[in-house]
Amino acid sequence: MVGGVEVESKYRIECSEMEYIEAALRDAGLYLEGERLEVDIYYRHPCRDMLSRDEALRLRVYEDNGGRLTYKGPRMGGGFKAREEVEIELTRVEEARLLLARLGFEETLVVRKRRKYYRGEGVLVTLDNVESLGCFVEVEAEDPGGIEMLESLLKLEDRRVDETYAEMALKNMGRRGDEAHRDREG
Amino acid sequence: MVGGVEVESKYRIECSEMEYIEAALRDAGLYLEGERLEVDIYYRHPCRDMLSRDEALRLRVYEDNGGRLTYKGPRMGGGFKAREEVEIELTRVEEARLLLARLGFEETLVVRKRRKYYRGEGVLVTLDNVESLGCFVEVEAEDPGGIEMLESLLKLEDRRVDETYAEMALKNMGRRGDEAHRDREG
Repeated sequence: MVGGVEVESKYRIECSEMEYIEAALRDAGLYLEGERLEVDIYYRHPCRDMLSRDEALRLRVYEDNGGRLTYKGPRMGGGFKAREEVEIELTRVEEARLLLARLGFEETLVVRKRRKYYRGEGVLVTLDNVESLGCFVEVEAEDPGGIEMLESLLKLEDRRVDETYAEMALKNMGRRGDEAHRDREG
Repeated sequence: MVGGVEVESKYRIECSEMEYIEAALRDAGLYLEGERLEVDIYYRHPCRDMLSRDEALRLRVYEDNGGRLTYKGPRMGGGFKAREEVEIELTRVEEARLLLARLGFEETLVVRKRRKYYRGEGVLVTLDNVESLGCFVEVEAEDPGGIEMLESLLKLEDRRVDETYAEMALKNMGRRGDEAHRDREG
């Protein structure tokens, strides 16, 4: 995230392409800022269906038990994803998880991913290997020009996906549910 | 707070007694751990009336813009106040305040106080000068024995109050509302 409003775009890639993309990023002057396992817990609000309002409340847990709690507002439309983000840093996530539970929030789904961050002038590129969902590249920039430049550099045109991991994971759960149903019926 | 469950007791004093009480605490071997202005913002939950459930969600703001977000569960009864506390530390409170607003939480009231902390073996004594409410001593201990010892040392027997500052402030607001109403009627 570069400011209070995030301009970003996400692309689906084959996991086998990861190496080539990392080389291209390094050649373009970006540097590997960090790599880690991230576990994202998404919450349901007790009063309103956050998904249908295009909102999200997410607790991100790092390997060292630090993390962050993030609210994402509805997408504002336009070519790139732009939505409000409000985020608080947490030195320990366990208290935050307990506090959310006490306030009645329910954990709806969990997304696990191995994530690498590459940073450059005004841009942040994130490479994700997401459990059950595959591999993705996310590009965040201060302006749409930065995103277009990287899109072209990494040959990502026409591979854009607009769904969030939470939406994909929910769909996946539905599909697995259907398959289990078919298996029982068949 | 000494553990996950807090055993504490609160007493109303005259503000003019503060000096004598501080001297008695120092004589008993407690030391002044800190002094600061604290602004407590209490929240209403959009789905449930937290006050009637004897719960509280409180954002505490320090002078340096750091703070903590605390959930307090219903009081468990018994001679001393015992209730679950879940707390997260915040390096900046502004994002937390915005995040709560985005999730639909409403700020119901604000309590400002000048607070001094005195710490001793297994006990914490807090001296409060609360805007519009007066002066108070709060005693927290690992066990009821520690509280009884301090109660006797500071001559606080029969001065215990069970109401929280939030409850007192709410009552005060009601009273001020009544007076304004009488003034208009009279």
